[in-house]
Amino acid sequence: MVIKLTNIEYNNELVQKYANLTRTINEEFINIHPIQRGGILTPEAYKALVAYGDGYSLCDNCLKGRIDKIENPPVVEFLKDMANFLNIDDVLLTGAARDSKRIIMGVLAKKYPKRKTVVIDSLAHYTTYLAIEHNNLNVSEVPNSGDSEFKIEASDYEKIINEVIDDDGELPLLVVLTHVDYKYGNYNDPTPIGKICKKFNIPFLLNAAYSAGTLPIDCKNFHIDFISCSGHKSMAASGPIGLLGFKEEFYDDIMNASQIQGNLSAKSFPSKICNVMGCPPVYGAPLITLMASFPTVVKRTQKKYTDEEGKKINYVIDKIKNIKGVQIKGKLPKIHPLTNITTEGFANVAMTHPRKGFFVRDEFKERGIIGMLPGISKEMKFSTYGLTWDQVIHFTNAFLEIAKKYNLI
Amino acid sequence: MVIKLTNIEYNNELVQKYANLTRTINEEFINIHPIQRGGILTPEAYKALVAYGDGYSLCDNCLKGRIDKIENPPVVEFLKDMANFLNIDDVLLTGAARDSKRIIMGVLAKKYPKRKTVVIDSLAHYTTYLAIEHNNLNVSEVPNSGDSEFKIEASDYEKIINEVIDDDGELPLLVVLTHVDYKYGNYNDPTPIGKICKKFNIPFLLNAAYSAGTLPIDCKNFHIDFISCSGHKSMAASGPIGLLGFKEEFYDDIMNASQIQGNLSAKSFPSKICNVMGCPPVYGAPLITLMASFPTVVKRTQKKYTDEEGKKINYVIDKIKNIKGVQIKGKLPKIHPLTNITTEGFANVAMTHPRKGFFVRDEFKERGIIGMLPGISKEMKFSTYGLTWDQVIHFTNAFLEIAKKYNLI
Repeated sequence: MVIKLTNIEYNNELVQKYANLTRTINEEFINIHPIQRGGILTPEAYKALVAYGDGYSLCDNCLKGRIDKIENPPVVEFLKDMANFLNIDDVLLTGAARDSKRIIMGVLAKKYPKRKTVVIDSLAHYTTYLAIEHNNLNVSEVPNSGDSEFKIEASDYEKIINEVIDDDGELPLLVVLTHVDYKYGNYNDPTPIGKICKKFNIPFLLNAAYSAGTLPIDCKNFHIDFISCSGHKSMAASGPIGLLGFKEEFYDDIMNASQIQGNLSAKSFPSKICNVMGCPPVYGAPLITLMASFPTVVKRTQKKYTDEEGKKINYVIDKIKNIKGVQIKGKLPKIHPLTNITTEGFANVAMTHPRKGFFVRDEFKERGIIGMLPGISKEMKFSTYGLTWDQVIHFTNAFLEIAKKYNLI
Repeated sequence: MVIKLTNIEYNNELVQKYANLTRTINEEFINIHPIQRGGILTPEAYKALVAYGDGYSLCDNCLKGRIDKIENPPVVEFLKDMANFLNIDDVLLTGAARDSKRIIMGVLAKKYPKRKTVVIDSLAHYTTYLAIEHNNLNVSEVPNSGDSEFKIEASDYEKIINEVIDDDGELPLLVVLTHVDYKYGNYNDPTPIGKICKKFNIPFLLNAAYSAGTLPIDCKNFHIDFISCSGHKSMAASGPIGLLGFKEEFYDDIMNASQIQGNLSAKSFPSKICNVMGCPPVYGAPLITLMASFPTVVKRTQKKYTDEEGKKINYVIDKIKNIKGVQIKGKLPKIHPLTNITTEGFANVAMTHPRKGFFVRDEFKERGIIGMLPGISKEMKFSTYGLTWDQVIHFTNAFLEIAKKYNLI
């Protein structure tokens, strides 16, 4: 048999292109992009990353054909500890929080085929919408109060649930609350919404992609049925890795054992979980880094540490809020450090600046700060999560310096 | 607002449990487990892994809201190079080969809702079955020749396709061939099966999880519509990362832009790909290590290197085939080094050995070789892929030594 050669050449040009993929920015710059702050590895995770870098590294010790049943390193124990940490009955590892949402909606759509609508807050992440679309469901949004607080009222959930019941003649399939939203970083208390869902007997999912790992979570107290979390977003894991926490009553739905059988071979795979295509897709680096960072995650979600993170962001806000044209969006004081501001003053400068809207990013970069979206001068999103006080002060001073330079103070 | 503290303690015990997740085995031992050999990182990938370890590290440079549109590091160029390497029109990054299969079947089930059956070879990986189950489809297996070659005949594909047409009154939805199977490592030539699919006008998927990255691939010459590949299994990537290669005519089906719209907010996400929940789920380490290893992958799939890998495994087989009770399974000579043998001699020893079936693993481990399944003495699976000749000879000699110790030579 002749195997034809592929039509790409191994040569110096190819090597040059891919051999030096370096990223020095995290040593030289402060990265204030909100999706980066919670995913920065701990020293323990770095060590584990290097040790378990190879593709299927964790599968070395797989004796039962499922990564979540490995006892050394202590995966089984870790999953129990994590469930305990979230205060929920059980946890399935997934590819990301978005996959957790996709799986939960798929499972419920199968369980309740007549229910067609998912009720979500109107600040839900785009992946919440895509999970709905993926499962051919309808979306019904709970309004927010608009500029400048963009507040979600628990009582509006009840209103929208009743509207869905009127329109569909069925209960909503699921109610979703975004614990901390991607846009304004508003913290929403799940408990009153959880109680409403309980009254109607509708499953309740908390999307905790930004909160679990940076703020305390207590699913039982929140009256939650499902929780979606993100290791790479908020638990200092290399990822991609997500968590799907669930109540015991959904065990068979979430951990659905494969039932297919080969028509000739009669092969079957009852130990595999159909929802995750067999094994949770976290074969090496993702899971080991999540595990290695876990003690730090437990520590940093204690009140004294989250209070300190709150102090940092509220310090920044207090210092910059009087800059000409700056408006702080979202609820104050901040609980989660993800912050959105409009910067009309910068936008005015951009109109005549030779670098146009890019000048904002340039000015911050010159001062060792990155993570601003390029070309945008009207709006900024940033997070101080995990910065030292020295860095927080440097960021604040840089902000004031730039404002002063352009006569905005 | 009071946030309750979680009920897990940050203490020394917790730190001890997760702070030292080391894995020295790859330095001290030769790992011959077939799922490990193709995923071992290149030095370039290690460097990239450390640089891009943080969760969303690649997203630093995202200007267009999609990871596959990043130009620096050269993701866009890499995807073109990879498509060129596979000789297929386009490539979507996925979580794993299994996700590629799940997505392809989902897309086709939507496109051809009357077609219900997927034709697969009877040595397909369990994830092929799970992709069928996940999409509520039926499986129809193409038989193999059984012990000892377990050969798949292209002509049997035609037979099974005709049976499905008779039974369903419709074409099969998809035909799948496992390029190199997980069980016997048999290499199957896709071309004749591709031609059959073309005649019937049925989409043809090659599962190349074990081959793409270790053997040459030429999708156009193979008459393939779709290919699923695995970065962590066969392309020296940290992963999890898969590839879904596809022909241009399926572009809109695979890269399906989100169409959902918020009923109040009117938010929509037309730049996001619904099949992968927005962005390909490879936010940092998975993609950067795949890219960094790419030049090596291009090099190692050239004929002179694959011939050398063939020589290594056939050398081992030639030396051990006469050990009492050893039977080589699968087609010979080997093209891919994944090898399955039965070891009746070892099984007989196990009956009276104080360590029972575990003695095989013990004996190899004493000689610096790991990757055998524990407790199993009747059957062995191994791969010499990427071992140096010194390691190949050491493995062979260890095998012969153990056989001699138990009077099997």
